[in-house]
Amino acid sequence: MSTDVNRRILLAARPVGEPKDTDFRLVEGPVPTPGPGQLLIRTLWLSLDPYMRSRMSDAKSYAAPVEIGQVMVGGAVGRVIASNHPGFAAGDIVEGRTGWQDYALSDGTGLRKVDPSLAPVSTAVGVLGMPGMTAYTGLLTIGQPRPGETVVVSAASGAVGSVVGQIARIKGARVVGIAGGAEKGAYLTGELGFDAAVDHCAPDFADRLRAAVPDGIDVYFENVGGAVWEAVWPLLNPFARVPVCGLIAQYNSVGASEGPNRMPQLMREVLSKRLTLRGFIVGDFADQHAAFLRDVSGWIRDGRIRYREDVAEGLENAPRTFLRLFRGENFGKLLVKVVTAGSDRPRP
Amino acid sequence: MSTDVNRRILLAARPVGEPKDTDFRLVEGPVPTPGPGQLLIRTLWLSLDPYMRSRMSDAKSYAAPVEIGQVMVGGAVGRVIASNHPGFAAGDIVEGRTGWQDYALSDGTGLRKVDPSLAPVSTAVGVLGMPGMTAYTGLLTIGQPRPGETVVVSAASGAVGSVVGQIARIKGARVVGIAGGAEKGAYLTGELGFDAAVDHCAPDFADRLRAAVPDGIDVYFENVGGAVWEAVWPLLNPFARVPVCGLIAQYNSVGASEGPNRMPQLMREVLSKRLTLRGFIVGDFADQHAAFLRDVSGWIRDGRIRYREDVAEGLENAPRTFLRLFRGENFGKLLVKVVTAGSDRPRP
Repeated sequence: MSTDVNRRILLAARPVGEPKDTDFRLVEGPVPTPGPGQLLIRTLWLSLDPYMRSRMSDAKSYAAPVEIGQVMVGGAVGRVIASNHPGFAAGDIVEGRTGWQDYALSDGTGLRKVDPSLAPVSTAVGVLGMPGMTAYTGLLTIGQPRPGETVVVSAASGAVGSVVGQIARIKGARVVGIAGGAEKGAYLTGELGFDAAVDHCAPDFADRLRAAVPDGIDVYFENVGGAVWEAVWPLLNPFARVPVCGLIAQYNSVGASEGPNRMPQLMREVLSKRLTLRGFIVGDFADQHAAFLRDVSGWIRDGRIRYREDVAEGLENAPRTFLRLFRGENFGKLLVKVVTAGSDRPRP
Repeated sequence: MSTDVNRRILLAARPVGEPKDTDFRLVEGPVPTPGPGQLLIRTLWLSLDPYMRSRMSDAKSYAAPVEIGQVMVGGAVGRVIASNHPGFAAGDIVEGRTGWQDYALSDGTGLRKVDPSLAPVSTAVGVLGMPGMTAYTGLLTIGQPRPGETVVVSAASGAVGSVVGQIARIKGARVVGIAGGAEKGAYLTGELGFDAAVDHCAPDFADRLRAAVPDGIDVYFENVGGAVWEAVWPLLNPFARVPVCGLIAQYNSVGASEGPNRMPQLMREVLSKRLTLRGFIVGDFADQHAAFLRDVSGWIRDGRIRYREDVAEGLENAPRTFLRLFRGENFGKLLVKVVTAGSDRPRP
């Protein structure tokens, strides 16, 4: 949509449980003008990621919450429209946490230039961006898969999970993906070359998972939590590693979970099997960015890593599109295309 | 007790919940004669350790269970009485898993010579043995305490916990010990130099613990599980490390634990605080034995590590003494003195 208005989507209320339309508010205002040292960015692609749910909450977390009335947080790919910053020029493609809005001002902090020759620029918030680097660092640094080991990943057709599984295959592991529904399963074993896929919506999910890992599980890359985790942990092998990356099944839950309390059994497994559980976020491994970009862009070029995008059009659709993540409705990296080709220059 | 009879304590039944007298059986037989390549060991000191409870059960664990009718497993310090093994001579002091019996035959496997000049030989199953090395390896390899950090250890006056706390102090950390009762607490802050002690028997234990760690917890060395763990984990700091060494509060529990299910909250903490939980046993770090012996014997000589032994007399008292571990009644490293001085040579 061509516009000389800056539309911004604000956090209107802290959601209880699943976010609702009324938790967001779309406001319009003038396109801002960059001051000294600033640049103006036109948002091209908006990334929708599970972590944003926790920023809507004021529960203690690794990052400060979005305040009520602030622009919703989010990574985006944009084009520099005007720049008073020596490091950026009009026309540059950039990636940064510029939020749910048509235009963003930036002083360059946290912004990086995207090389459009590597891959389509939308990948800068996908397979070559935060989700891809999350997969790369968490799997290789914490999971450390070895040839012949069994790696299981949940949310396996998503932006992170699909990269986890493919890198694990490249490292010689046997890979089992957990995803919802037959279509995603077929994609995992067909297009992405996973060794097996298990549908977590099946009523006998736990049995199917057990059958799919006859040698147990050496690495479990956790994106989901909840019932999936409860089915996974009894299958972990001695010395298994569990990078804890996300818990999307739990993000909207309210209050305490019904018993029995499974904690004592988990601790017993941690001890008797000498398990490692480790939570992380991609920022913990910022020093691996160059290695990540080199390796994963190479694997994309070689056809060893494939990716799939699930694209909604129009900034105004960001809230309802975001909710698809929590219903498992997205299929691949979830994006909002904010401008269509040719319409991304503001009228003067 | 001088004897030419070999008394052995066998596992008579698999305990349900807390072990009972009838789960053990004392039998008498002749002192065995070493065959080719074998040696005969007179047990001097028998070590009683929490891990033995899991060997009495046939639940899956890192080690095979003791079979019904077999001698109870256990580390011991003994004197070589006769040897047909080139590596050992009569008079040598040795340490190994020779079990709950007056005399043991060995082919030398898993046996190590003890240097009596380092410290009293009973320490070979204590501060300079398996418990001390468990503390050293788990704390330094997994816990990695840094100067100024807060380290909390449970079962803090025990064989492992007391060494954990003292090494953490040597490494410059602030150390808080959890133990049962005022007497143990006074020992921790007095004799051992801990910065604070918290009594887990106090009805307001969780509040006291919180007050004792104003800067949160960076390393929690887990020996206990159960209610202590539930009070600890909400206090863990970002990037905290949790070496999971033991769960003595849970070893005798039967069946599922009452709800609510705390697992989802724990996983949320693991993620949002990027915690590391890692189970281990001392055998995982066997390559650190020389470093352990060098460092800890040096710290004992310098007076920087102290230890306390809780000694029962007589092999026949091993079963009832063992139970004191689960009631928190031991105060220091729990040992059975199997022979008294001068009575440790068999009549010919």
